[in-house]
Amino acid sequence: MRDVAIIGVGSTPFGRVEGMGIVDLAVAACREALADARVDRARIQALYLGNFVGERLAGQGSLAALLAGRLGLTGIPATKVEGACASGGIALRHGALGIGLGLYDFVLVAGVEKMTASSTPDVTAALATAGDEAREMRAGLTFPGAFGIIMREHMARYGTTREQVGLVSVKNHGLGAANPKAQFRKPVTLDEVLGSRLIADPIRLFDCPPISDGAAAAVLCPAEWARDFHAKPVKVLGSGHATGPATLWEMDDLTAFPATVRASREAYAMARIAPADVQVAEVHDCFTIAEIIASEDLGFFPKGKGGPAVEEGWTGVEGKVAVNPSGGLIAKGHPVGATGCAQVYELVKQLRGEGANQVRNAEVGLAHNLGGTGVVSTVTILGRL
Amino acid sequence: MRDVAIIGVGSTPFGRVEGMGIVDLAVAACREALADARVDRARIQALYLGNFVGERLAGQGSLAALLAGRLGLTGIPATKVEGACASGGIALRHGALGIGLGLYDFVLVAGVEKMTASSTPDVTAALATAGDEAREMRAGLTFPGAFGIIMREHMARYGTTREQVGLVSVKNHGLGAANPKAQFRKPVTLDEVLGSRLIADPIRLFDCPPISDGAAAAVLCPAEWARDFHAKPVKVLGSGHATGPATLWEMDDLTAFPATVRASREAYAMARIAPADVQVAEVHDCFTIAEIIASEDLGFFPKGKGGPAVEEGWTGVEGKVAVNPSGGLIAKGHPVGATGCAQVYELVKQLRGEGANQVRNAEVGLAHNLGGTGVVSTVTILGRL
Repeated sequence: MRDVAIIGVGSTPFGRVEGMGIVDLAVAACREALADARVDRARIQALYLGNFVGERLAGQGSLAALLAGRLGLTGIPATKVEGACASGGIALRHGALGIGLGLYDFVLVAGVEKMTASSTPDVTAALATAGDEAREMRAGLTFPGAFGIIMREHMARYGTTREQVGLVSVKNHGLGAANPKAQFRKPVTLDEVLGSRLIADPIRLFDCPPISDGAAAAVLCPAEWARDFHAKPVKVLGSGHATGPATLWEMDDLTAFPATVRASREAYAMARIAPADVQVAEVHDCFTIAEIIASEDLGFFPKGKGGPAVEEGWTGVEGKVAVNPSGGLIAKGHPVGATGCAQVYELVKQLRGEGANQVRNAEVGLAHNLGGTGVVSTVTILGRL
Repeated sequence: MRDVAIIGVGSTPFGRVEGMGIVDLAVAACREALADARVDRARIQALYLGNFVGERLAGQGSLAALLAGRLGLTGIPATKVEGACASGGIALRHGALGIGLGLYDFVLVAGVEKMTASSTPDVTAALATAGDEAREMRAGLTFPGAFGIIMREHMARYGTTREQVGLVSVKNHGLGAANPKAQFRKPVTLDEVLGSRLIADPIRLFDCPPISDGAAAAVLCPAEWARDFHAKPVKVLGSGHATGPATLWEMDDLTAFPATVRASREAYAMARIAPADVQVAEVHDCFTIAEIIASEDLGFFPKGKGGPAVEEGWTGVEGKVAVNPSGGLIAKGHPVGATGCAQVYELVKQLRGEGANQVRNAEVGLAHNLGGTGVVSTVTILGRL
């Protein structure tokens, strides 16, 4: 397999982006990525787009082909991929594979979601389609509910405290405050988190990500050509993609996601690194507890030690591994189909030394994207070229 | 690139399939394909699923991962791809590329849609998301409307007669009558077609495909191993995937789809054959006129001669090239995300000599899948191994 590099990235701000439809958002992120890569767009040979509920919330399917057209790339193969909240990570993986396997030389990858123009009940119903509708969600379970059950179990089994979980929100909101792309730019205190509105016991409002609009994009090419396009190219060191149980009742252990474990093992093996080699990670904190579980599933901390790690500051920007220096889904925002690409956008900035909350000497970064309650996950490992 | 073979296929009946949800349909087709391939399912390394509006009409996203789980394949990477009505063709292409490029040895490919449980207005609205919602469809254009405009233009420019277009429906309904998987099993006369209810002038009811449930699947592996699994393996000779204009007003010529032309050229070049080498084709007759245009875009007949070709019987089972011996979308049915895989199912049966309307000495088959009004197209060329 050829070595693959990321030579350009782009992102819209995340949040309520007025006046831009779903295609406009994707176009804006792609244009920025193409300009960043200083690549003639006529060289782009394929497009992969991650999107989850565009047909439902934005009334728009055929998004990948539409996007190709709006970018002046009509003709090239353009594919939308969907894996719920992991759609962006799956798009990135397919772009990297396309180049690594020699099918294409230049690929544009993007992720997008437009959510704020819909009512909250419509968004909640659309998001619920990430679960097993017929066998679980139809009974009324929501994602805050599912992660509430998971959070309670993690607390019961490992002694994880409500305060430890809440500190994820404090950390991420603090970091988001310094990220110009973030939806929430205001720090919160632990008291504010623990006193915020109860959503699905024990999940509170500040344990949750917002409803967001946004898009992110990246341009990929063979690593050997990367320096012709960008002074600080980033190499794709490893990639993993795996599936897991779709329902809570099929999980052997509510406190771990086998898809994350499997995808990360694949990615670590391909990159030939260990979890301890990662300095910066953007992980899928769709709820505060999900960040703690990810930090364990990815091997940063032993099982059950993710809570104390947050309390000790080990996941802060100055910690053992900086987790979600962007502010994560919780503070930066979670335009679902965009998230996996946005994580890569943030890591590329970090590895270039241009991060919003720059991690010192960041040489290896990891992006972890999760769908549903672990039904699918992608892990992408990036390094300085 | 390694040679790729199809070693097993499966399909549900198309039509109103009572008592089966979207996942059940996909599971049934996949089980049949796995059994046909006599492959131990533990060897399946990846799954690609084509689906268009599952989140919207069936309330189910994450479909690829869910399907993997329901088949006992939890863990493997599973990806849903979407390109409107060409979703199934895109899935097949990704499975073939994954094996051809050496990433996987055994891949399961499927396509599915569940449509009949929704109201006709809901289905119409969901299908409209295949067009450019913001820039065309929001103004009220529907797909029958778009193809009505296209049909009128083809008639005006080339002298194609209403009778010639109607004869596509007569042919396809006649063929569907002999296909046990078809939704419509009853021949119709030209008078019945031309006298059927006007839907969007000049498109009449019998120019349209029905609303359908259904799924189809295929198992792929390297050609060198294919005979270990099936006595009559089918080789993937070529594959093309291209995009085109998303709106009618961006088309230079309403009577041709550049995405089809480009995808077919790619596929012919890869297969090293000419259009005249194809004995049997399953083409995307989403409306009668679309079959005529496809027969021209694919190079079977010169531009403007597709109408007379139907009248002369050149697209019949005994003709120069048998077009849609399955009955096509119009008679077999059009569960949107399944269609591209169903075309391949039918061609594999033809190349094995087991077709519903068997074409004599069928050695090379072509599947043509189209999204929207030509925004995306895939072409897959198959041959006896």
